[in-house]
Amino acid sequence: MTVRFLLAYDGTRYAGWQRQHHAPTIQATLEDALRNITGHRTVVLGAGRTDAGVHAWGQVAHARLTTRLTVRTLQNALNAVLPPDIVVRRVTRVPNRFHARYDAVRKRYRYRIAVGPLKPLFTRDWVHWVAQPLNVAAMRRVAKAWVGRHDFGAFHSAGRPVASTRRTVYALRIIRRAPLDHGLTGRGGELHVEIEADGFLYHMVRRMVGVLLEIGKGKPRPIAAPTAPAKGLCLLEVKYR
Amino acid sequence: MTVRFLLAYDGTRYAGWQRQHHAPTIQATLEDALRNITGHRTVVLGAGRTDAGVHAWGQVAHARLTTRLTVRTLQNALNAVLPPDIVVRRVTRVPNRFHARYDAVRKRYRYRIAVGPLKPLFTRDWVHWVAQPLNVAAMRRVAKAWVGRHDFGAFHSAGRPVASTRRTVYALRIIRRAPLDHGLTGRGGELHVEIEADGFLYHMVRRMVGVLLEIGKGKPRPIAAPTAPAKGLCLLEVKYR
Repeated sequence: MTVRFLLAYDGTRYAGWQRQHHAPTIQATLEDALRNITGHRTVVLGAGRTDAGVHAWGQVAHARLTTRLTVRTLQNALNAVLPPDIVVRRVTRVPNRFHARYDAVRKRYRYRIAVGPLKPLFTRDWVHWVAQPLNVAAMRRVAKAWVGRHDFGAFHSAGRPVASTRRTVYALRIIRRAPLDHGLTGRGGELHVEIEADGFLYHMVRRMVGVLLEIGKGKPRPIAAPTAPAKGLCLLEVKYR
Repeated sequence: MTVRFLLAYDGTRYAGWQRQHHAPTIQATLEDALRNITGHRTVVLGAGRTDAGVHAWGQVAHARLTTRLTVRTLQNALNAVLPPDIVVRRVTRVPNRFHARYDAVRKRYRYRIAVGPLKPLFTRDWVHWVAQPLNVAAMRRVAKAWVGRHDFGAFHSAGRPVASTRRTVYALRIIRRAPLDHGLTGRGGELHVEIEADGFLYHMVRRMVGVLLEIGKGKPRPIAAPTAPAKGLCLLEVKYR
């Protein structure tokens, strides 16, 4: 049978999604857990190959399995076997033609920035910390121009050739959020950059956020801004037709 | 000069507050950082000796220092030198007679319980996870009887003799909280047990929460409930006259 997984993970200690030699990855950890449970080797294909240190709340993946377990039992077994930084939120049986990557039509990412004089404590692995205040209005003005169908080649990092660098950004919102850790935060808050698009180029969100941060800090529009660190990024949702 | 520190830390990888041989502690980490910065050995005395794995948002400590640094510079230097799981929220100069432990008149602790079918992901080191629903009304009825001045000897763990096991609990609240991690949570939420008292016996909060959890799960009032795990506990605040 073919099953679809809805996955959340803390990417901190992983070398990204994709299986690698000599480095722990999400894909390999899932495949090993499934092999433990079903007794068969299985390939788990993800909707997006998140980079080293990038997190996910709504990654989607599929696998062809040979097992008599129900999807509910499979989910419980996986959550019992997997390390605490990977959680299987849902397992559903899908038609054999389902493909997590090729069938995905939109993805939504969130980039979390903690703004304030004190370094974040309890959220430190999932936010990028900026001590100085940011000019959010200026960031929003720049971000506005990125919504729609455009050539995002300027935000594509070398190393992964693509057929086209044109993508459609459906929404790009910069949201101020109060620190949401049950009052365990000092002054300051968080800034969330949320982007929904039909696809993302390699490092696209982190390079966009890199530019936005330079703008927010009051620098003139940079030719090449530093790519924002991986740990602020989270794959929130993958949408299918 | 004598300085007072307002400290927050993630206790996960520490063997508690108090300096020990062969195990990292918060006190030793702070003393080593201060020695690095000032060039002198210093003793840092905390208001409460939090156990291994217990966290703090508002621990208070004091130290006598020989330095020409301002308190602001000292704070910045400490936050630069300390590991990411310890944050100095404030440094203030205080009269030499100030003593973080003996002058404290009240302390407030919070115990976080995540309730829901899925194991918590991003909050996993700071909450105790309970999969089954809890009967909060029953927990509140039991907790009510603990407010006031009582002998809490039944909640005192052996190993640390005390002169008296009488303490005054000023407030004990059980609060339902929505999951506050920016939507990165499935069904369920958190239950916070907040206790303010003039002092706490060894393991007192964790043993109280242990009893409350048994009650919440529908068990008859237990003679000896398991002590709740350290990781759910956080020292929120220390109050002075």
